[in-house]
Amino acid sequence: MTLNVSTIIEILGTVAFTISGVFSAMQKRLDALGVVIIGFITAIGGGTIRDVLIGYTPVSWMRNIDTPLIILVTAFVTILFKKHIKSFKVTLFLCDALGLGLFTIIGIQRGLNVGLHPGICVALGTITGCFGGVIRDISLNAIPMIFRRQEIYATACIIGGSIYILMLHVIDPNIAKLIAVAIVCSIRILAVRYKIKLPVG
Amino acid sequence: MTLNVSTIIEILGTVAFTISGVFSAMQKRLDALGVVIIGFITAIGGGTIRDVLIGYTPVSWMRNIDTPLIILVTAFVTILFKKHIKSFKVTLFLCDALGLGLFTIIGIQRGLNVGLHPGICVALGTITGCFGGVIRDISLNAIPMIFRRQEIYATACIIGGSIYILMLHVIDPNIAKLIAVAIVCSIRILAVRYKIKLPVG
Amino acid sequence: MTLNVSTIIEILGTVAFTISGVFSAMQKRLDALGVVIIGFITAIGGGTIRDVLIGYTPVSWMRNIDTPLIILVTAFVTILFKKHIKSFKVTLFLCDALGLGLFTIIGIQRGLNVGLHPGICVALGTITGCFGGVIRDISLNAIPMIFRRQEIYATACIIGGSIYILMLHVIDPNIAKLIAVAIVCSIRILAVRYKIKLPVG
Repeated sequence: MTLNVSTIIEILGTVAFTISGVFSAMQKRLDALGVVIIGFITAIGGGTIRDVLIGYTPVSWMRNIDTPLIILVTAFVTILFKKHIKSFKVTLFLCDALGLGLFTIIGIQRGLNVGLHPGICVALGTITGCFGGVIRDISLNAIPMIFRRQEIYATACIIGGSIYILMLHVIDPNIAKLIAVAIVCSIRILAVRYKIKLPVG
Repeated sequence: MTLNVSTIIEILGTVAFTISGVFSAMQKRLDALGVVIIGFITAIGGGTIRDVLIGYTPVSWMRNIDTPLIILVTAFVTILFKKHIKSFKVTLFLCDALGLGLFTIIGIQRGLNVGLHPGICVALGTITGCFGGVIRDISLNAIPMIFRRQEIYATACIIGGSIYILMLHVIDPNIAKLIAVAIVCSIRILAVRYKIKLPVG
Repeated sequence: MTLNVSTIIEILGTVAFTISGVFSAMQKRLDALGVVIIGFITAIGGGTIRDVLIGYTPVSWMRNIDTPLIILVTAFVTILFKKHIKSFKVTLFLCDALGLGLFTIIGIQRGLNVGLHPGICVALGTITGCFGGVIRDISLNAIPMIFRRQEIYATACIIGGSIYILMLHVIDPNIAKLIAVAIVCSIRILAVRYKIKLPVG
């Protein structure tokens, strides 16, 4: 692992989604290993589906022990510090929003790297961002946020992802990445804060 | 995309399953993007699982923008015309039956193309036909039709698919395709119309 | 198929998980084909996910007709003999525990064969062992055992799998396989028998 912007984004996304998975599982009172497993699949779920769809196998997290170690350490630290965290619900929401933004951009970049159509790349980024949380929610027997009414979720990925691809023609890719991550997170957070909804289909 | 019988079947199957997904999602009162996403995953779900199982990656719908565009246009037209459609339930059922037949035969053909055993090809066709609907139903938190008691569903794929493989030894492949699609659809429709059931296992 | 220890373990695991799937489906009163399908996906689910993750495609069960035939014969025999089986619940539990042990070790061995890190191989073995049952339970709309509180499930795979990898440095691989399978099954059975639980996370 060399430390560039993409790698840092990937590590942060992994940490954010692990925390969100651990918090979801602790709310459901799972046992210690169950909590770690849900943290794990939340962190690697989106990227794994992305890798399988584009045929990048063995999938990313299996190629070395780095990602699993980051997830395990994050999960244990989260479990240890849970007493010091005031609001499970807010922490879960913010980590989920952050992971969503980070993984969406990573997913789009992977699609561009293998030469897919920009529109397909936005779909791939949305899948990468959303499906860790989808698998987490299905595993915990909850309706995935992405399918819940009155939540801007995939919308944030599609808007932020499309802007990212447009920005690539204009500014430095690393700066574009950071701005795009901020856009996805902001849309998600503002939509929930101000109860912005899409119309019923 | 060149227009031959297989391509036409694939496009019709994509349209039929998109409509069935959009109707299912509208019944559950999802927001506009949720409706489009459910239409999308219903249309590409079965083929994606098929491609992943046989190692055809990037999976079919990612290889160019045609399939996503067909799905998006179909979804928007369906949403626009929903007021003019009398019975959601009947439209959903007929589109689902049509998609089932079309995708089963496409799936079998893909299996034969890569040299799999005919029995495996029938399984692959059944997976291709059934799993768009399975993912649609799981996403909407309903029990998948394929697992519901007293529904002839996978049975239709297995019978129609087996007849297709037998017909290939006797008649023109394109005519065999059309007959086989008709058989799968007819079995499904007649089974529901006349309440034909399999015995309990 | 040549008959060596790995092949025998694979066949036994397939038979055990088919029976566990068939019993689960019969308890839910599915129709005959539904019962066979649930038996099928329980038997091939874990191995299929493993193959997809490491990029071994077409996945194992599609490469020849042997595995599907073993599953079909097992399913029919199980359905025929159901009257003679006293306790569905105990049979289901024991077959599930046996399949868990057998498939965990097969999964780890496949990972080692493609040169993955030992820690990743234990994860891959756990996935292979657990996900047939997970897909079975999700299909039947039940909470997967792996996520249920107060069940030692993945824990058994992780402990038995880690011991297997350590034993490989010391004793004959075939003997190590058999001992490791026995360890996974025993931990699972003893944990349920004596109600051993992990602490809440």
